[in-house]
Parts: sequence; C-alpha cells; structure tokens
Amino acid sequence: MTTKNFTVTGMSCGHCESAVRSELAELTGIEEIAVSASTGELRVTLAEGADLPDSAIIEAVDEAGYQAVPAP
Amino acid sequence: MTTKNFTVTGMSCGHCESAVRSELAELTGIEEIAVSASTGELRVTLAEGADLPDSAIIEAVDEAGYQAVPAP
Repeated sequence: MTTKNFTVTGMSCGHCESAVRSELAELTGIEEIAVSASTGELRVTLAEGADLPDSAIIEAVDEAGYQAVPAP
Repeated sequence: MTTKNFTVTGMSCGHCESAVRSELAELTGIEEIAVSASTGELRVTLAEGADLPDSAIIEAVDEAGYQAVPAP
C-alpha cells in the first residue's frame, strides 16, 4: 500500500476539506484520504496495486481551488 | 424595502458564505443577500411587503453552522 503526503495551502475550514475530498473522490485508485485544513496536511493512501501519479492528485486539489505540493 | 443587518461569527471562506446563503435561500420573503466571511457582515434585504422576523434569519444561519446577532 502506498501513501502519498502533500502540503495543501489555502484551506480554511471543513468546507474546504470537503471540496478537496470531493475532487479526489473522482479519481480511481484511492483507498483513503486524510485531509486537515488546520495543518494543511493531505495524506492519500492508494489501493493495492493502484498507480496514481502525484500530478493527478495535485490536479484534483487544484480543481478544488487549492495548491498541493508533495511533502517531504 | 427593509434591510436587516447581522454580524455573523465563524465564517472563514467562500464555502461558509455559500452555506449561509443556501440556508437563507430556503426562507420566503428575501430579495437579496450580501454576506462576507472576511468582515462577518450579513445584509438581508426583504422583498416588498415581506415580514420575516430576525429570529428566522438567525435560525437559518445557525442551521448553516454559524452564529448571527443583529448588528447595530
């Protein structure tokens, strides 16, 4: 199972978290999403065998109106 | 035309403004809504002849998850 971590800027509340979740939900291959407006942390756990590039995640977050960068 | 002003606490972004608008939209007798997360100002303009008590507006804002008090 692969976990990808990102730092998302611009989220301020639960609605923002929902907007990010909602866009990510449209992608195939994600098993779990953990996102926090207060810390800006986004953790995406991919399903077994899924191959989802960072760029797809970053683009989905962008669609929601925020900017994500891979976290160290 | 009657205009009612409120101060709303807890809104942080455009999603919050939308949530407030959305709840207020369910009320009858409102002609215009101006709401700002940054200032916390909510201005509700009633339609001609409409009689909407402050309490109905405050309750709708509460449904959205925020607290409104009549502004001076």
